[in-house]
Amino acid sequence: MSTNSSPGVPMSERTTVRRGAKRAEYRREEIHEILRVGSVAHVAAMTAEGPLVLPMAYGISGETMYLHGALANALLRAGADTEICATVTIVDGLVFAKTPFNHSMNYRCVVVRGQAQVMTEEEEITDALHVITDHIVPSWDITRHPSASEIKATRVIALPLTEVSAKIRSGGALNQPEDVDAELWSGYIPTRTVFGEPVSDGDAHGEVPGVIAHLPSRDLHIR
Amino acid sequence: MSTNSSPGVPMSERTTVRRGAKRAEYRREEIHEILRVGSVAHVAAMTAEGPLVLPMAYGISGETMYLHGALANALLRAGADTEICATVTIVDGLVFAKTPFNHSMNYRCVVVRGQAQVMTEEEEITDALHVITDHIVPSWDITRHPSASEIKATRVIALPLTEVSAKIRSGGALNQPEDVDAELWSGYIPTRTVFGEPVSDGDAHGEVPGVIAHLPSRDLHIR
Repeated sequence: MSTNSSPGVPMSERTTVRRGAKRAEYRREEIHEILRVGSVAHVAAMTAEGPLVLPMAYGISGETMYLHGALANALLRAGADTEICATVTIVDGLVFAKTPFNHSMNYRCVVVRGQAQVMTEEEEITDALHVITDHIVPSWDITRHPSASEIKATRVIALPLTEVSAKIRSGGALNQPEDVDAELWSGYIPTRTVFGEPVSDGDAHGEVPGVIAHLPSRDLHIR
Repeated sequence: MSTNSSPGVPMSERTTVRRGAKRAEYRREEIHEILRVGSVAHVAAMTAEGPLVLPMAYGISGETMYLHGALANALLRAGADTEICATVTIVDGLVFAKTPFNHSMNYRCVVVRGQAQVMTEEEEITDALHVITDHIVPSWDITRHPSASEIKATRVIALPLTEVSAKIRSGGALNQPEDVDAELWSGYIPTRTVFGEPVSDGDAHGEVPGVIAHLPSRDLHIR
């Protein structure tokens, strides 16, 4: 953890939330809780053809975010130490005000900015793949572990959780004073992600493992 | 619609999917269907402090994507005609292979790249806000419409759907030949977003409107 990561204090100028600051969140515990619940990071890098943002699987270990997905290949081409931005968003609800100007969404969002480190050591990549796998569902221990050649073909990026901020919006609509008495409804609808029944592959053996068969809703903590 | 937007043909070099090309999708109908179902775009722009990606609400009208959210302010500062990338991802399922190397997610993802146009005309902004509002839930007609000063305070970006591509992954795991007979389970778990009960604000009048009370699951079309 960096020395300037005290609870409630922005880590750097560029991770200071400028808009909707009342919803800004810099406490480590809150940031880690959002990252624990999220499932996909949208990762942006500058390419020769302009900015590019792609979804990537991720996992967290200590104060490091590991990222796995197609953008890792592009970043590998771009060279090490490329500046990236990884954003994890959980949509918690739709907010309907009395006028669309005040419509909003309830959400929790973490933004991480920093230099991507493309991992090259077999052991590091294996550890990162373990972390990313278990972030989705703790299932590493019930699989055949990757071979050396598979690890070699796996692109993983490490991003330090140094310059990180979060934004949280919750609750109902904030109506304009002029609208408070208007004969219109306002409020919010909670949303969450649910899991359906497992679908077994043709070459699957045995029962669906318990950790997969009984997945909890990942974002139950609706605000 | 651009002249080179024939079904199945990449719109430009930089929107040609380079990885997992068998999952690439360039047909207009498929791209519009994904954009219709998605709820949030992750939008990236280059800033003086490196790339930044933030979630934004969006709506589609014809071959234009309208974006609304905090990044619009940053782009307004950066000046018109800034290159951006807007990515809409719908996660449809978690794919468990017999080894984590073959784990995946089922998803539908659209990537749009191009020059952001910050809208300045009151009528254009009103139309865009109408489109964005109705994208989430067709509720514009049951609200008090924004005033001229509210429209003036609204930042909306237009992005042409010219350079656009999609990637779709569906179905079960693709296991390595060596794993097919392994005594391990593999398969996938469908995921979808569901809506909870509406929560009325203290200043809400009347019943919950029908379009809000009876929201369908937005991404029912699980592959």
